[in-house]
Amino acid sequence: MSMNAIRWHGNSDGVTLRYEKIAKPELKPGWVLVKNAWCGICGSDLHEYIHGPKNGPLTPHPVTGEQLPTGVGHEFSGIVAGVGEGVSDLRIGEKVVVFPSIMDHTCYYCREEIFGLCQSRGFMGFSGYGGGMQEYVCVERIAIHKVPDHVPLDLAALTEPLAVAWHGVLLAQPKPTDIALVLGAGPIGIGVILGLKAQGVEKIYVSEPSQTRAKKAVEAGATAIFNPITTDVAASIAAVSDGLGAHILFECAGVQSALDSAFQSARGKAKVIELAKYAAPVSIWPNTFNKKGISYIQSNIYTRQEFQDVVDALASGKIKNADLMITARIPLHESIEGGFEELLNTKDKHCKILVQSNSPSII
Amino acid sequence: MSMNAIRWHGNSDGVTLRYEKIAKPELKPGWVLVKNAWCGICGSDLHEYIHGPKNGPLTPHPVTGEQLPTGVGHEFSGIVAGVGEGVSDLRIGEKVVVFPSIMDHTCYYCREEIFGLCQSRGFMGFSGYGGGMQEYVCVERIAIHKVPDHVPLDLAALTEPLAVAWHGVLLAQPKPTDIALVLGAGPIGIGVILGLKAQGVEKIYVSEPSQTRAKKAVEAGATAIFNPITTDVAASIAAVSDGLGAHILFECAGVQSALDSAFQSARGKAKVIELAKYAAPVSIWPNTFNKKGISYIQSNIYTRQEFQDVVDALASGKIKNADLMITARIPLHESIEGGFEELLNTKDKHCKILVQSNSPSII
Repeated sequence: MSMNAIRWHGNSDGVTLRYEKIAKPELKPGWVLVKNAWCGICGSDLHEYIHGPKNGPLTPHPVTGEQLPTGVGHEFSGIVAGVGEGVSDLRIGEKVVVFPSIMDHTCYYCREEIFGLCQSRGFMGFSGYGGGMQEYVCVERIAIHKVPDHVPLDLAALTEPLAVAWHGVLLAQPKPTDIALVLGAGPIGIGVILGLKAQGVEKIYVSEPSQTRAKKAVEAGATAIFNPITTDVAASIAAVSDGLGAHILFECAGVQSALDSAFQSARGKAKVIELAKYAAPVSIWPNTFNKKGISYIQSNIYTRQEFQDVVDALASGKIKNADLMITARIPLHESIEGGFEELLNTKDKHCKILVQSNSPSII
Repeated sequence: MSMNAIRWHGNSDGVTLRYEKIAKPELKPGWVLVKNAWCGICGSDLHEYIHGPKNGPLTPHPVTGEQLPTGVGHEFSGIVAGVGEGVSDLRIGEKVVVFPSIMDHTCYYCREEIFGLCQSRGFMGFSGYGGGMQEYVCVERIAIHKVPDHVPLDLAALTEPLAVAWHGVLLAQPKPTDIALVLGAGPIGIGVILGLKAQGVEKIYVSEPSQTRAKKAVEAGATAIFNPITTDVAASIAAVSDGLGAHILFECAGVQSALDSAFQSARGKAKVIELAKYAAPVSIWPNTFNKKGISYIQSNIYTRQEFQDVVDALASGKIKNADLMITARIPLHESIEGGFEELLNTKDKHCKILVQSNSPSII
């Protein structure tokens, strides 16, 4: 049987992504067949689209054995369509999200859940086992997280980007009375705001130059927005913190000016959490924040427990209004033009575009 | 009554330091007169000697009311020579060390013991109330830490630099099984090694290009020394850590190459503790250590409790062999030539030179 899929093609003939018919994956013992529902387009997908192949393997991946062309999309939900021999705790039709990291499960870093450092590390949507932008995937049981019935599958597809933000929020060990500053209100920044709200933090300031993103940050629960182009962010934070600065800061922009602003806006003993990627090195002068005793903490991916915690928080309502992140829903066959190209051509208009993996059969 | 003293003179006439006669301080109610014993020369003293006036106040200091000329030396021990009215828990002749931070005791940062950020902040040996390189000082009771009789006063004079290192060691939350890397084996690096040993850490590697300092690090208990000029430190650490890298790293050199080496030598989730000052900004690429989830933690000064803990650890023998840090003992009247100039002219020969404040009356 065949199915529709978007796949990475490595750009060797000038084409990075193709919408095509491929074989439907076969169920294996111990694995689970998932009929995909919704899949978000991530910044890393866009990066691969423009600059790839970077993550798509040119030679067989050590765990999946696959090489380009490979499936696309790692932020996805679906329903169980089949269970392999030995899988007894899932039933067909159950809602699920898929934990996308692929690891060898044996090395020091896998045991410590430091996913960025497994030498065999792969990621669904890049390294094989397919991705969310195809009708079906077959994945190991360990990758499946159940989603309660009352949680819509489009909301569940936000689990992965929310887990990235959630990990950063937990690294800051937030207290409800903390003053937080979020620098950059793209999808991760919005996820951080939602995560902070879920942790009971009430004073959440945001530095964001785009009016569109600023509006989204307010919807998500930000206390106030400072435009770093027209405002001295550190002075604005000082004005709302008895001159002391923020306790916890989340750098989600990936540019020198935002990092500078974070260190300047931090009070003594503050935690600056880094959630962004940088196109180039930055300059820092440790002395300037050494006297403040600041911790600059790198946040990378998330643990399995944090991924599950996000599912639970979406289900319980602890994370509220996450669906405000979804700015478009498009069918699979339109995902290249209406998703990737749309994101590239409409700077800051969108937060998260969701692709309907089995259009139009599941909503 | 007069006494001998070394004082900062601000370099307005080409002279930074003078050895001179000044009035002996008078005892005030609630304050304590200390007959100084030994005082270490710190890197910050050398910096002031070459580049000052930087810390010496040109206008009256908000807490001490003093301006240049001011006393020199903040790493010092002595004995109680008089107690002011209302001080009932000290007796004349008791050994003491002096906590040198001078603060307004009221602001947010004072309450949080973030000494670098008190807006009124001063430091004995720069900002008034005298310093260790004079025969007597009169200080507030709160600045006095008692030293048990069996602890030699020259050893007690190491409390301050050891407390700087101790604070950094505690920030790393070391476990005995951790692999540590100390970058730079000057006085603070040696203090970190001694602090790590006191915490039960057994695998302490050191990156240090100077042969003299390397020898000192071995005396202090380092497991092995890597010369960063001739050795790939990250590869050497990988070779002794199953390819994983160090758990806790202490940057005590203040140069780009050492910071790079720290990030390269760190395993996933490592803590890199910054204890150095930098003459210029450095370049970092957050992506390169983001995937490791590293925390880069700025260590600045120490709390009162940590200062007391160092006194206790010197007394109990938990910190062992700290006297190896002392590479010369010189009388007060020789401290400019035999101390400041000696340190400037004999790169890396010394670890800590102690000045005998009341030469030759106390040893």
